[in-house]
Amino acid sequence: MPRFFLNGGSTIQGGTAFILGEDAEHVRVLRLRVGDRLVICDGKGKDFHCSIKNLAPKEVEAEVFEVVPCKGEPSVKALILCGLPKGDKAEYIIQKCTEAGASEIWFFQSHRCVAKLHGDADKKVSRWQRIAEEAAKQSGRGIIPTIGYLPDIAEAFNKAKETDLPLFLYETGERKSLKETIESAQELRSAAILTGPEGGFEPFEAELAAMMGLPLCSMGPRIFRCETAPVAALSALMYATGNMD
Amino acid sequence: MPRFFLNGGSTIQGGTAFILGEDAEHVRVLRLRVGDRLVICDGKGKDFHCSIKNLAPKEVEAEVFEVVPCKGEPSVKALILCGLPKGDKAEYIIQKCTEAGASEIWFFQSHRCVAKLHGDADKKVSRWQRIAEEAAKQSGRGIIPTIGYLPDIAEAFNKAKETDLPLFLYETGERKSLKETIESAQELRSAAILTGPEGGFEPFEAELAAMMGLPLCSMGPRIFRCETAPVAALSALMYATGNMD
Repeated sequence: MPRFFLNGGSTIQGGTAFILGEDAEHVRVLRLRVGDRLVICDGKGKDFHCSIKNLAPKEVEAEVFEVVPCKGEPSVKALILCGLPKGDKAEYIIQKCTEAGASEIWFFQSHRCVAKLHGDADKKVSRWQRIAEEAAKQSGRGIIPTIGYLPDIAEAFNKAKETDLPLFLYETGERKSLKETIESAQELRSAAILTGPEGGFEPFEAELAAMMGLPLCSMGPRIFRCETAPVAALSALMYATGNMD
Repeated sequence: MPRFFLNGGSTIQGGTAFILGEDAEHVRVLRLRVGDRLVICDGKGKDFHCSIKNLAPKEVEAEVFEVVPCKGEPSVKALILCGLPKGDKAEYIIQKCTEAGASEIWFFQSHRCVAKLHGDADKKVSRWQRIAEEAAKQSGRGIIPTIGYLPDIAEAFNKAKETDLPLFLYETGERKSLKETIESAQELRSAAILTGPEGGFEPFEAELAAMMGLPLCSMGPRIFRCETAPVAALSALMYATGNMD
């Protein structure tokens, strides 16, 4: 069923939803008609099932006939933290990790990042946020993941540290087993997945992570591309915590 | 370390490797010099560690100094079987699933496939095979996954049935838990992951799969895009079988 979020100026008043702006345009593009059903999600875990009552070019009126908890949210709040990659790989990571159940996706600047964000960070983040919204709609999420940019890797480490299980995924040296690390965690309500940019992490970055108490974990003997590692690790985490069943 | 496969006409004779054709060109592009090291994989699980002895435009000679088992191969042979998707999504699936450890990747025609392959199937498969080779080199695989096309969904079901654990991933109706299905398998040496094209499977296709003994499994309440589902499920399988550690 077509899915919208209550964030584009759309509102629900009493038993009626008013879909405005781009979302109203989207209803038109989907060729929905009076009587067709759609879902409006409040972005906080509640789904409003509606039936279209009136279609105007810039405003769609729909009657709410059922309010149910959104089933799309995993029990673990997963933060994805990636070294800023080149080209459109950030968009790819956002789309795939939103589908796989990420709560927040942050890109940070690390030593080997070739890509840089300067004055255009705000514009980029707005664009990324729209990609997250689209992916959240399509995949049936109950929230739109928060997307952001961190100019300093230490901020990424701090964000990761706030979760119950911060995982620093690293390609060499002494590392823990991802499986054992995830399975030894008790009452996992949140986790962080930290991955590097194209060239990976510098050894001093891994040392800093270890000093800050982030376990260095291996993803196995195969080398993942920087845009594949987050979605592969997140899929493993969701699987392990019973959120892919 | 740069990695090549023994399939482009390159050979190993005695203690010397001769790298020919496109791979020799690739050595030049990488600006490797005499004395630099590279790995030549026989595609059957053995890695030949070499040191460059002589560089000519179309032939590179390298001395083999060590032969070791390739560490990149998972213990489970994973077949990926996908409804043929539109555009470049097949390429995406090949690249990501090769990184994640797939042994074979097949695209099949199913009822809701919008994309079709007619006389151009062979050309397409050759192109796909080259993408698999590139991804296998980059990710450190010990084999190049076999890529192919199946004009009939029944052939895909037959291929899946030959494995120890054929998983038919389906979005609706009564399904088994992916986790329980994987974890209840004994001595898992091979598995198959079957996913649909953009529009998913038709109910009659799911019924046919069930009749053929393929368990219908859920990937959870979120809807994955057709190009994301195979890599997410494969990551879960590799994680569960200790191949992502």
